[in-house]
Amino acid sequence: MTSPKTVGALLFEGFELLDVFGPLEAWGILGAKGGWRVVTTAQSAGPVASAQGPRAIADYALDECPKLDVMLIPGGIGTRKAVDDTVLLDRLRRRSADARIVTSVCTGASLLARAGLLDGRRATTNKLSFAWVTAQGPHVQWVKEARWVEDGNVFTSSGVSAGIDMTLAVIAKLEGVNEAERIAVRMEYDWHRDAGWDPFAKIHGLVG
Amino acid sequence: MTSPKTVGALLFEGFELLDVFGPLEAWGILGAKGGWRVVTTAQSAGPVASAQGPRAIADYALDECPKLDVMLIPGGIGTRKAVDDTVLLDRLRRRSADARIVTSVCTGASLLARAGLLDGRRATTNKLSFAWVTAQGPHVQWVKEARWVEDGNVFTSSGVSAGIDMTLAVIAKLEGVNEAERIAVRMEYDWHRDAGWDPFAKIHGLVG
Repeated sequence: MTSPKTVGALLFEGFELLDVFGPLEAWGILGAKGGWRVVTTAQSAGPVASAQGPRAIADYALDECPKLDVMLIPGGIGTRKAVDDTVLLDRLRRRSADARIVTSVCTGASLLARAGLLDGRRATTNKLSFAWVTAQGPHVQWVKEARWVEDGNVFTSSGVSAGIDMTLAVIAKLEGVNEAERIAVRMEYDWHRDAGWDPFAKIHGLVG
Repeated sequence: MTSPKTVGALLFEGFELLDVFGPLEAWGILGAKGGWRVVTTAQSAGPVASAQGPRAIADYALDECPKLDVMLIPGGIGTRKAVDDTVLLDRLRRRSADARIVTSVCTGASLLARAGLLDGRRATTNKLSFAWVTAQGPHVQWVKEARWVEDGNVFTSSGVSAGIDMTLAVIAKLEGVNEAERIAVRMEYDWHRDAGWDPFAKIHGLVG
């Protein structure tokens, strides 16, 4: 019997609710059958308030959590402060080095960018805050029109609900497309499988 | 200045993550501009473990929370136990009587059904557990094929991600369709506006 693989979501004050719990819903359904467990982590263990108000509990301090096979970095208004937290960025860098896959949702890409983890890579982020996020990573090849971008072991998604589509693509890569489809059906979710599907880039004037 | 309107989500052990946090993401975005606040409630205030593992915090005990303009009852494996909790059902009945709108996501309809709140009404629920949920409400007019169903002041949605579509419809009703559209775009969410859209009823063999 193999030990479970672990997906860990980073929480910080002002994280965006759906950026975290959309992907963790999918990972959690996989977990029940697929040998995965879901954990939450933050600078310290304990309650963390989301941007929308509700609080979640970080199971582990980032320095004390088990090895993370997949890391999930959400966005949210709290990223504006978190990008200047050099201790957090240093910990993110160290934990990412051990991870098999690193993922971000929405403005979570700003944290990966400031940690230097996107330098030289293709990446995307949400479309409403595109200018601010991309300014955090001058050495990143930012993609304006994409639901998500895969580059090496780093997956970055567009805004909020795009994290669910990206997560299903990561699960398809690791566990097979049939398993990703089973999870999408279980969630009664209309999975956008095309990483290039992005009407929001046009809505926000990033492409003509 | 009017006091904020309140949307409250019920938490119980084994609640489904996305059933709660998909809708609360939309309500939270409305909240920032629209005079709404989001609270969480449970039998007791404090941490509550989801079906997927991560824990959220109930801000208030159900008996002590402020008046709820909108109630959100999620599903999840925990409904199997919660439907036999007569104290919870009694509290749900009393709080619902004060609410302007009562909503359920996924198997959350089982709790409304067992509380008698769906008797004589049209309602739906998730398609994978359709037989179990509908058995909880013999006097309900269950609709097999629907993304969500509106009957009077009660909105019931299909499985998991359907709660987001239903929530945007409720917001459109209360605050106007432009506000619902703004929120969908902010979430970069492909809103299914048609309450009759439901490919999952066929996938699960409920309709031919």
